[in-house]
Amino acid sequence: MEKYTMEVCGLKRELPYIPIDEETAFASFVILGDVELIGAAAEQLVKKLDAVDYIVTAEAKGIPVSYEMSRRLGLKECIILRKSVKTYMKEPMCQSVKSITTAGSQNLYLDQVDAEKIKGKNICIVDDVISTGESLKAIENVVIRAGGIVSYKVAILAEGDAAKRDDIVYLGVLPIFSKCSDGTYIKK
Amino acid sequence: MEKYTMEVCGLKRELPYIPIDEETAFASFVILGDVELIGAAAEQLVKKLDAVDYIVTAEAKGIPVSYEMSRRLGLKECIILRKSVKTYMKEPMCQSVKSITTAGSQNLYLDQVDAEKIKGKNICIVDDVISTGESLKAIENVVIRAGGIVSYKVAILAEGDAAKRDDIVYLGVLPIFSKCSDGTYIKK
Repeated sequence: MEKYTMEVCGLKRELPYIPIDEETAFASFVILGDVELIGAAAEQLVKKLDAVDYIVTAEAKGIPVSYEMSRRLGLKECIILRKSVKTYMKEPMCQSVKSITTAGSQNLYLDQVDAEKIKGKNICIVDDVISTGESLKAIENVVIRAGGIVSYKVAILAEGDAAKRDDIVYLGVLPIFSKCSDGTYIKK
Repeated sequence: MEKYTMEVCGLKRELPYIPIDEETAFASFVILGDVELIGAAAEQLVKKLDAVDYIVTAEAKGIPVSYEMSRRLGLKECIILRKSVKTYMKEPMCQSVKSITTAGSQNLYLDQVDAEKIKGKNICIVDDVISTGESLKAIENVVIRAGGIVSYKVAILAEGDAAKRDDIVYLGVLPIFSKCSDGTYIKK
């Protein structure tokens, strides 16, 4: 099967094409278990930050890179928005979000205990890939509702039109692809 | 609100009581954003391991400690079982699991690409807390079905009867609690 070869942080990865529809595909970037790339990306991303109090992300793909960035910044905690209400949560804040990789819409939940922590603090929002920006926007909305100050919005990769944004920090670009009549893919 | 004070890896944490029913409660241990404790626990856990090829865990709470253990072991990848089928997966293996912290039963999915990686390899299964053992058993089943060799089963904490098990490695014990008539909790 044909794959898209990309390089980020000096590491090459082969990404399978995933069709969105008959004509369009994206390249699947799976960071969750990629310990080597998580470490390399976190090292690069923290160099671009100054005076951050908390890293905030949404489960699941943002978790390890947020942990590693926090560790490198000397932060003792990071804040993880959950996709469902957990028994430990008290009066969680709910925010709806649309995703291109998960069918339909979903909700993100911020525990009230975490909401109080980020109030008035400098926040860096982290995601693995910023694409349509819907996930990022949802996280940003919750942080602002909780009284946090969104100082940075960072990702390992910017996909498609996200690469044109000047309000985000990222380490590499991921194209969107068109399917050719011979079944191969070219960058849109 | 009254909380249970515990110490693990030299770090004190205050855990809120979560009622299971009228008479029983557990103490809620939330590791996901606890960067300080993840680092300390991973440091202790890797000292107990020898010749591990892959760390395997299930999303979401096991992710950061599995990342950190893998990093410390010099492993470039770790394997994360997902709670739903993702677009990037090809013929994922499905395993059902019961959970006391999530209502009802759920499924875990192992991507075929990951299944091939762990075949014939020495696997360390990691979880945040081993309690009923249902989650651990589900992960173990999938690893065995994929042909992996379960060399270690480790957790930060063993809860309730799990502390009596001699087939798991853990760093601390979490009691189950009885509710007293005055509303306070005592260890069962």
